Amino acid sequence: MTDYTVTFDLADEPVQVPKGTTLAEAAQMAGVEINQPCGGQGRCGRCAVKVESGDVRRRSTLRLSANDVAQGYALACQTVVEGDVSLTVPPQEQIKRRLTTDHRETEVTLPPGYDPETAQSLRRLNLTITPPSMEDQTDDWSRLQAALRQEIGVERLRADLDVIRKMGPVLREGEWQVALILNSADWRGSASVPRLVDIKPGHVPEDDPLWGIAVDIGTTTVTTWLVDLNTGEVAATAAEYNKQISRGDDVISRIIYASKEEGDQKLQELVVETINELIGRLCERSGAQKEEIYKVTLAGNSTMMHLFLDIPASSIRLTPFVTAINHIPLLSAGEVGLDTHGEAVLDCLPGVASYVGADISAGVLSSGMDDSEQVTLFLDVGTNGETVLGSKEWLVTCACSAGPAFEGSGVLHGMRATLGAIDDVWINSQTYEPTWNVIGKRPPKGLCGSALISLLAEMFMTGVVNKNGSVNTTLDTERVRRGEHGGEYVVVWAEKSAAGEDIVITDVDIDNLVRTKAAIYAGFTVLSDSVGVPLETAERVLVGGAFGKYINVEKAIQIGLLPDMDWDKFQFLGNTSIRGAHRALIDMEARERIKDIADRMTYLELSADNRFYDAFTSAMFLPHTDLSRFPSVEEALDRMSA
Amino acid sequence: MTDYTVTFDLADEPVQVPKGTTLAEAAQMAGVEINQPCGGQGRCGRCAVKVESGDVRRRSTLRLSANDVAQGYALACQTVVEGDVSLTVPPQEQIKRRLTTDHRETEVTLPPGYDPETAQSLRRLNLTITPPSMEDQTDDWSRLQAALRQEIGVERLRADLDVIRKMGPVLREGEWQVALILNSADWRGSASVPRLVDIKPGHVPEDDPLWGIAVDIGTTTVTTWLVDLNTGEVAATAAEYNKQISRGDDVISRIIYASKEEGDQKLQELVVETINELIGRLCERSGAQKEEIYKVTLAGNSTMMHLFLDIPASSIRLTPFVTAINHIPLLSAGEVGLDTHGEAVLDCLPGVASYVGADISAGVLSSGMDDSEQVTLFLDVGTNGETVLGSKEWLVTCACSAGPAFEGSGVLHGMRATLGAIDDVWINSQTYEPTWNVIGKRPPKGLCGSALISLLAEMFMTGVVNKNGSVNTTLDTERVRRGEHGGEYVVVWAEKSAAGEDIVITDVDIDNLVRTKAAIYAGFTVLSDSVGVPLETAERVLVGGAFGKYINVEKAIQIGLLPDMDWDKFQFLGNTSIRGAHRALIDMEARERIKDIADRMTYLELSADNRFYDAFTSAMFLPHTDLSRFPSVEEALDRMSA
Repeated sequence: MTDYTVTFDLADEPVQVPKGTTLAEAAQMAGVEINQPCGGQGRCGRCAVKVESGDVRRRSTLRLSANDVAQGYALACQTVVEGDVSLTVPPQEQIKRRLTTDHRETEVTLPPGYDPETAQSLRRLNLTITPPSMEDQTDDWSRLQAALRQEIGVERLRADLDVIRKMGPVLREGEWQVALILNSADWRGSASVPRLVDIKPGHVPEDDPLWGIAVDIGTTTVTTWLVDLNTGEVAATAAEYNKQISRGDDVISRIIYASKEEGDQKLQELVVETINELIGRLCERSGAQKEEIYKVTLAGNSTMMHLFLDIPASSIRLTPFVTAINHIPLLSAGEVGLDTHGEAVLDCLPGVASYVGADISAGVLSSGMDDSEQVTLFLDVGTNGETVLGSKEWLVTCACSAGPAFEGSGVLHGMRATLGAIDDVWINSQTYEPTWNVIGKRPPKGLCGSALISLLAEMFMTGVVNKNGSVNTTLDTERVRRGEHGGEYVVVWAEKSAAGEDIVITDVDIDNLVRTKAAIYAGFTVLSDSVGVPLETAERVLVGGAFGKYINVEKAIQIGLLPDMDWDKFQFLGNTSIRGAHRALIDMEARERIKDIADRMTYLELSADNRFYDAFTSAMFLPHTDLSRFPSVEEALDRMSA
Repeated sequence: MTDYTVTFDLADEPVQVPKGTTLAEAAQMAGVEINQPCGGQGRCGRCAVKVESGDVRRRSTLRLSANDVAQGYALACQTVVEGDVSLTVPPQEQIKRRLTTDHRETEVTLPPGYDPETAQSLRRLNLTITPPSMEDQTDDWSRLQAALRQEIGVERLRADLDVIRKMGPVLREGEWQVALILNSADWRGSASVPRLVDIKPGHVPEDDPLWGIAVDIGTTTVTTWLVDLNTGEVAATAAEYNKQISRGDDVISRIIYASKEEGDQKLQELVVETINELIGRLCERSGAQKEEIYKVTLAGNSTMMHLFLDIPASSIRLTPFVTAINHIPLLSAGEVGLDTHGEAVLDCLPGVASYVGADISAGVLSSGMDDSEQVTLFLDVGTNGETVLGSKEWLVTCACSAGPAFEGSGVLHGMRATLGAIDDVWINSQTYEPTWNVIGKRPPKGLCGSALISLLAEMFMTGVVNKNGSVNTTLDTERVRRGEHGGEYVVVWAEKSAAGEDIVITDVDIDNLVRTKAAIYAGFTVLSDSVGVPLETAERVLVGGAFGKYINVEKAIQIGLLPDMDWDKFQFLGNTSIRGAHRALIDMEARERIKDIADRMTYLELSADNRFYDAFTSAMFLPHTDLSRFPSVEEALDRMSA
């Protein structure tokens, strides 16, 4: 048998191999490392290489598109040598990005043609004022307004008492040179009266940062972005669990806690504390001063918004489920105790209904679906599981109480997608041994949302759990066992984990995850049924939510979280709420659009809908009681068992 | 010699008297009591009686007008019997009113055609709202606005966070029947967005009082009126010394105190404490609840306004003497700690300059001079001694630091014009024995402003003090003596006084009073000189100030406080600042007019004006160094010494 020459771009020398050798074997011989998370089973697509020249035979092209194959891509584990071959090994990141959605929260694209000077509500202005004299004894406030009128044509000005109090001394300290921080809902017209947020002695260099923060108060996670309003760009980000978690996992238990004596104040304190700690972190990371944060734009679901402002939320929980207020007036950050400049503009974005809040209005903006001809399904896979269906023409929305499992809460070793979190897991279907990836390449601490999805899918596809979601503890591996919480699967042995203890997933964890995915799936199916728009006709599925950086569509479909649609239709947007809040923070037009979105969305109340209960019950299996809804999963299961 | 028959309406029987008997002697014989405060010297005019028929001879008609004489009036002490005579004795009050200006603070005339429904900014509205349902899950705030839109056509509404917080529970407690308290700067247009000040469960009877208070913060005295905004009428009044007095008598010493560490906060506390005590008294007197006071309209001089709001006031004191702010935005009473409803509208009226404040803008409104063709001189005889000269066409103003003497502060036995205050004094020029009147007819406690004026005038006219203001202790009476504070005159012996100690006036007191009157006189003379409008050409002199109920023009002229003009030209308006505040409280048009007045007034700075210093020095005598300026006083002195 003739040996063929295989040349790798990464290898020092070519290797000689017999015909029929897999490219993966050849790579090993050549000393080139190719990742095979699925253990060479042709499932994960991570071993893709590019055939630059020569003959190969692809036994399987699963995960490769026709276009990929046309470009020469082949799966190293499923492709055999049939002549002299020359290969290049693409960087891992490149492969990953092709297969999943690599979504870095901080990669923010500003709107096309964005001009910070005209777009945003906050302005800093250096002003030189003629000092008073015995000939002109005009009061300071009128003098300031006259100077401003001359400078930018603004007729009048508003200010809170605290700013009026400091004005006189600041004018004199700055020797009649001052920097003003102004906010206006509309800088074009003269109808709107700007508010003087702060006045500082002396002039400030034009390029000194002008700080604002965007905040998303999630039921489980609070996310903050520090933004330089001079450019609109994000200077630092920080996220942390909402400290309110200690008083209840979901919005319902929070509302109940709030109705206890001083419970509302406690919850307000806790979330303000969370935000303030994050503000501290943002400032540390960027060198910003808290006192120099002049605007806060805040998104969150309706319960979070009410609790944050200490507005009674009990009507949200009780039939007929109404909020106290959806469109909240502009406030000052000091009123609620935020660690920013006390007079900072606090803009709480508008929500739609009790269970579809400002996070969704902001999310829809950030998704762009409100401005698109395409019928789009938008899912926010957070604790509340909101769904929006629609287009430029119409928007309908609903929410299901999904629970916090995919944010890592209510799962024994769940965690947020931070350094040390496993964010992807593969299981070898023969050995049941897992392969995982850790954010920041270090001993793992736990499992973030994307890992939970891939882990659950892998366990299901490899038979480690059955369709009811129970771990099969009879398998011939030490990885499965009975523990405190029923059956469990060990993902990481103690000696490899950061904390020195086994990282496991238990029957109880799985039950939580299945309930969550079932609620989300039931939500959008009932929504699409209600408006008579079959899911299949949706042209795009946009998924928001704080899973972590990578989401695997296939895996999400395999567990029945997402509908079984063409992968190309899916797009993962990460935390759309914070993105929307960021846009509203830097752009008055975007803020106005969020208001319009909130007004336009038709809300469907699921809590009183029997169809929802039925759909939820049917979805309490992996992937679903009705496997015909998931043809690609059925096919994959067939392939696995073949 | 034939006896004549004299018949008194008040006597049981006529008396027979010889020709030449005075009517006073006849009255004594008939057992009819006729007051003779001046001791029968024909100076006070208080013994006027009416000759119904018969012949009398009037030796003097001083104090009686030609018209009085035509009607038959005669001074009992100066008129002798020349035939059978029939006399009536008018009630004392009637005489007093003719001779002085009886001014009761609470006799408030509402503007002609005043309609509380349309005139004022505050409204109470009973609203019945359609409750939410599963078919209509609109949020409470939007629901409230929709109901309001339907009821009164108001498009939008504003509210502070506290009101938004209580709204949901109140709507449910009232079972969707609520009473709203709303405030709007303009109920006619849709441009202005009303503020929801309060929301209460259930409907409120239409005629339940809707409380507001007008406040005048004087440097020395704080005056408050409780007003039922349903009618505009004053339900109770209360006044008290400004507790800030303990930290300085005049605005300058207060500003200095405020610039010390935490001095500003202390002064703010003190004035707020004063107002809150007065609010407590108003509520006690009327049965109103503090929480039901929804609007506070506040006048006061610029320093008082700054200190009340804790706005730094030092620029008022330092050249070029400017305020931080003249037109203060609407605030909430809770922001400054007033004991009203926390969200009550706090309207601080606008001032003109450092030493001409909102009390004067309000006072000018209340005087009506801004709307009159007549050239009017308006004096506010308070601690700051402001003067306004002008008409419909033009207004100029200035201020002199007069001091608090006429408000009873800085005078040993000075006091406010309350029960137990002596408000009028006469001295017998032979015996030097005084006659006095006490408010509320009881043992006297001290001397109020009007008493100080008449006492000083009487002492001067009878030679108890000389033109330099020193008590002549060589007189043959126990009433004069040397005391701790130099020469003094005993007005009330210990056994007749409320406190059981002598009530005296001392050289030091007199020096204070003379300085005060000199500053005021110098102020308006310099003002009239500056604009080239001689005082004589002024058609009216309107005098505001908290002297007490009665002011004696003649006495005020005798000490050189007021210019020596025809008495008919004088009108005493009492506390014009509180009257203006009351008008602004109940009438949006009046509020707008006060703003226009403040904008229209041209301010003349006296502190840097040598003419003022010269005029002040010349006025430091009784009545003035230049006696030719006071011809009527010169004449009276001649008469006395004749």
